[in-house]
Amino acid sequence: MTNMSNTKAYAALAAKTPLVPYRILRRPPGPGEVQLEILYCGICHSDLHSVHDDWEATRFPSVPGHEIIGRVSALGEGVTKFAVGDVAGIGCIIGCCGECISCKEELEQYCEQGFLGTFNSPINDTEHTLGGYSERIVVPARYALHVRHPTGQLAGAAPLLCAGITVYSPLRMWGVGPGKKIGVVGMGGLGHMAVKFASALGAEVVLFTSSTEKMADAKRFGATECCLSTDKESMTRYANQLDFVLNTVSASHNLDTYLRLLKRDGTQVLVGAPAEPHTGPRVFNLLFRRRRIAGSLIGSIRETQEMLDFSATHGITAEIELIKIADINDAFARMERNEVHYRFVIDMESLRQDQTA
Amino acid sequence: MTNMSNTKAYAALAAKTPLVPYRILRRPPGPGEVQLEILYCGICHSDLHSVHDDWEATRFPSVPGHEIIGRVSALGEGVTKFAVGDVAGIGCIIGCCGECISCKEELEQYCEQGFLGTFNSPINDTEHTLGGYSERIVVPARYALHVRHPTGQLAGAAPLLCAGITVYSPLRMWGVGPGKKIGVVGMGGLGHMAVKFASALGAEVVLFTSSTEKMADAKRFGATECCLSTDKESMTRYANQLDFVLNTVSASHNLDTYLRLLKRDGTQVLVGAPAEPHTGPRVFNLLFRRRRIAGSLIGSIRETQEMLDFSATHGITAEIELIKIADINDAFARMERNEVHYRFVIDMESLRQDQTA
Repeated sequence: MTNMSNTKAYAALAAKTPLVPYRILRRPPGPGEVQLEILYCGICHSDLHSVHDDWEATRFPSVPGHEIIGRVSALGEGVTKFAVGDVAGIGCIIGCCGECISCKEELEQYCEQGFLGTFNSPINDTEHTLGGYSERIVVPARYALHVRHPTGQLAGAAPLLCAGITVYSPLRMWGVGPGKKIGVVGMGGLGHMAVKFASALGAEVVLFTSSTEKMADAKRFGATECCLSTDKESMTRYANQLDFVLNTVSASHNLDTYLRLLKRDGTQVLVGAPAEPHTGPRVFNLLFRRRRIAGSLIGSIRETQEMLDFSATHGITAEIELIKIADINDAFARMERNEVHYRFVIDMESLRQDQTA
Repeated sequence: MTNMSNTKAYAALAAKTPLVPYRILRRPPGPGEVQLEILYCGICHSDLHSVHDDWEATRFPSVPGHEIIGRVSALGEGVTKFAVGDVAGIGCIIGCCGECISCKEELEQYCEQGFLGTFNSPINDTEHTLGGYSERIVVPARYALHVRHPTGQLAGAAPLLCAGITVYSPLRMWGVGPGKKIGVVGMGGLGHMAVKFASALGAEVVLFTSSTEKMADAKRFGATECCLSTDKESMTRYANQLDFVLNTVSASHNLDTYLRLLKRDGTQVLVGAPAEPHTGPRVFNLLFRRRRIAGSLIGSIRETQEMLDFSATHGITAEIELIKIADINDAFARMERNEVHYRFVIDMESLRQDQTA
């Protein structure tokens, strides 16, 4: 096809190799599709897992990235949702079957056929989707979101598209708001967003962290209290005190630790996906207060738009460190050492100006 | 006190010793209390655990029994709920603090101070409650239930007071009824009641059992389908098919086995309490369909009355084997070998006529 656009990107060509400059072809927007020039792309832990092939399901070459903020540069036939020049966001989902019960209920993230991911999802026998570590992208307009943050906040808005919605969805699903005292466990990319959202939703927020250094930040993000999770005595003080716990920790740990903090009928929601299984829960910790453990996976397109609008209204963005794409492998290394406060975002202008790419 | 009534009972005098004839003193009914002559007492696994001191919390001498059907024989001052001669039931709970949030919401089973159990709960520094393996009992009328089953069904109604309410409560809590397809795991004392209740509530019920021999019974109790839980292929057929799973198995097993059978937003409720912890759940099994695991503990007094009325209306009782109290130790031994179909009930007339007691 003559209209394919030669597009700069960064890709991993095989498992556990560094990302390198790479050229991909993007199709022109077809009916119902939009083309975005990517401004910013957040770096999610999934990107790292995918490049490392930790889940043994990576298709190479792999171009990660599903926390995308861009500017609409072309519209396919029939698109009225956006105008050229609009700022738009793309998250984890760019397609679904549309037929199953979850799709009919507009919960695309739970599509029975599996949703089409922004990267690493098969399109046909030979091709798979390529994500946001690239100059531009073409997706169905239905999966692109309006981003109403002012220009100066757009880089910080990128992580809302995955980290943000992943914590916002369960907070809303389980009714976190005024009159509720909740716990957020862990303050990484997801946890720091959870503190901001839960507090903006009107709940009293206790941050549980193993790092005293993060406590001042947590207060700044809206936490009313902080608890050192390694201190047994402090933890005991919160036994049976919380209406809800959002556990964002992805390292394997004991689920009873936070289950014990829940009141009757309280729920601990897990959003992290550890490589090794967690231990627990002890059944008595569930039985005696009718407590629950649940999972939650990102969020729907409708809910992502709601979250973006809520964020714009409340001035909520992620705390980020903006990097050049040439520094991507260093950023991955720092993520593996947990040295991020609190999310890396790639300034995609650096890709356009990259002479090696 | 001169009015104490010398009462025949069976008790364990120390851990892991056989139950033996034993005399206890029952006080006369005080204000608000009722005295019951016990007609029948079901044998619950808790009785066995308590006598064996499996939970290392048994107070001796231990008189177990909390599935009690009796006839009201005396009323304390001010009791209008019952008349002498009425049939009444007593379950696991005969007191609670009345002050905490759970008590105020009439969920006595979750009393923050711990409810007063029908047996093995401390009354003061030296005394503890003594249960239904006895001729008579005195309890506050507030915790005694009306039993409207016909005389011929009273023995079978006894297990409703613990096994029955333990499964009825979560079935109601999680909205099991018409249009829902649910799984019941295990068909012992609790499981067989769950099949009967869920089916009477209008749900489609799949019984999961490791014993093909129980399948005909399950159908008779109302199950629409049975699945051999040890057959991998049969299990695979139910993947993502169920709205709810009530897991009554008290042996340690892998929680993922039944989690995988749930649709999106489905809940697996555990009511069994294994000595060894279960394995799992894998987080992905929770995340990808927003599935939940929860616990549930018996039921409230209000809900127990509702369950008894529902049972009387639908002619629901437990499948029982009626025994003489002298055979109690043999019955315990058969329970340990899982040789019960499906609940033992003691005919308390055998205690009154027991010359050795």
